[in-house]
Amino acid sequence: MSRKQKSSSRPGHLVVVGGAEDREQDKPILREFARLSGGEKARIAVLTAASSIQDEIWEIYDKAFGDLGVEQRMPFVINSRDEANDPHRVEQLLGATGIYMTGGDQKRLLAMLGGTALDSALHRAFFEHGTCIGGTSAGASAMSGHMLAESLNDSIPQKGSVNLAAGLGFLHRVVIDQHFSARQRLGRLLAVVAQNPYLFGVGIDEDTALVIEYGKRFEVIGEGAVTVLDGRQMSSNFLTINHHEHLELIDVRLHLFPAGARYEAGEPGDEGCTGLPESLREIVSVITNRDYLS
Amino acid sequence: MSRKQKSSSRPGHLVVVGGAEDREQDKPILREFARLSGGEKARIAVLTAASSIQDEIWEIYDKAFGDLGVEQRMPFVINSRDEANDPHRVEQLLGATGIYMTGGDQKRLLAMLGGTALDSALHRAFFEHGTCIGGTSAGASAMSGHMLAESLNDSIPQKGSVNLAAGLGFLHRVVIDQHFSARQRLGRLLAVVAQNPYLFGVGIDEDTALVIEYGKRFEVIGEGAVTVLDGRQMSSNFLTINHHEHLELIDVRLHLFPAGARYEAGEPGDEGCTGLPESLREIVSVITNRDYLS
Repeated sequence: MSRKQKSSSRPGHLVVVGGAEDREQDKPILREFARLSGGEKARIAVLTAASSIQDEIWEIYDKAFGDLGVEQRMPFVINSRDEANDPHRVEQLLGATGIYMTGGDQKRLLAMLGGTALDSALHRAFFEHGTCIGGTSAGASAMSGHMLAESLNDSIPQKGSVNLAAGLGFLHRVVIDQHFSARQRLGRLLAVVAQNPYLFGVGIDEDTALVIEYGKRFEVIGEGAVTVLDGRQMSSNFLTINHHEHLELIDVRLHLFPAGARYEAGEPGDEGCTGLPESLREIVSVITNRDYLS
Repeated sequence: MSRKQKSSSRPGHLVVVGGAEDREQDKPILREFARLSGGEKARIAVLTAASSIQDEIWEIYDKAFGDLGVEQRMPFVINSRDEANDPHRVEQLLGATGIYMTGGDQKRLLAMLGGTALDSALHRAFFEHGTCIGGTSAGASAMSGHMLAESLNDSIPQKGSVNLAAGLGFLHRVVIDQHFSARQRLGRLLAVVAQNPYLFGVGIDEDTALVIEYGKRFEVIGEGAVTVLDGRQMSSNFLTINHHEHLELIDVRLHLFPAGARYEAGEPGDEGCTGLPESLREIVSVITNRDYLS
């Protein structure tokens, strides 16, 4: 029951959605997720464990994916860690070609799933079977190894105002935030970067997705943009102020990727991300997980 | 009727307020403005021309400054350019030790005042008499030479989504935006910087002020923070996309100054802003207007 990937890995796509994706009209993000999961032949599992109203959420996605022509749709209502260790559920999950993690509370999702057989199965599905993994809102935040767990709802970044927790670890060295523009989350993502300059802050707007072809490229689709904060060159007052005092930050690098932005990680063996501005190379390498494949 | 400053200039302070400043409780920002205007002996003129409900706005500030112990308070309700050229009003304004420009619409304020005798008088008051000039919301935006006039209310920066106009010109090489965090204005300030990399974007939060001692130092006071965007090292797709397409921006530098942040411009004759990180020197020099004094 580990997340270790095999050397024979052939991972699929990650579809990291900023919440509030269109589920009723044209549904471009869900459509793309379904396409990457095999289109009409996809077998899509909807993992609702982040939510406290799992049945309602399942109905919404059941209808949405049905409208998109996906015939095989499986609810994954999980209510306990025992259920998340049930070998029968594991077999079911491994039969999926796409797994979509809904919104709710990412802490609930990880408390339910973290370290269970289903957690391992998610990673086996992705790394061994090439299953497409999608996540929206809480399901998006849960995808990184360091997961944004909670924050003071304060647009002014304070020391100690943001707590991280252990996420699912499909993405490394990033923290994902969602509903980014709509909920004015620049402040809290700056607070993450101030305390964790090793991590890149990735803010995804509503109805917008970061589509990652693991190790190869990423692309932004949908209505909004993806904002990346890079604190590597930053200086701040973090070390000299007290808990809950306000942060002063100098030289945070900000990158804005609108829908249509697409970056290639380059071929294995080359120096990586050739042709990119120096400041973007490591970001593209990190977001695509270029260096995490064996 | 020009804005030219005399060589004998001894400018006062600018108090650039991000809107929604406390006018009823402790009023720390209005209190500081009153103090810089002479305290209880201040003669404060409230210039309401940006607003379409000037009498109501005057009453609010009349009470607020009265509560702060300022006995001499003058309404400056201006309804036409003729009034803004009235020598009697000019004399009145030159008698003030503090001039506070209220919120409303900065386009209205400039269309009423721009190029009038009252416009010149504002500059004479500031540069020759050391009168303190405050402005909140629209009154803050109006302070820069290039003024943010209007924008599509869209958090995703688009080419051509932001229009600048001519402001009052107390600040150079910056564009001021207000209600910055509360109204999710990162997107529109990024759009300004994308089109105008020569200008620094200065976003001021509500109940927060940038207090500038002209040529010498600046300080942030209040509840929120001041965000500065620097696009000098930025690369973008601006030149290759069409009107209303989404902007892709790489390497915007972001600086966050919370309340209490204070920067010194250094002495005239030195290289300026010594002891500051390289990337901040020009910003501090620009915001303090260090190089615009004769």
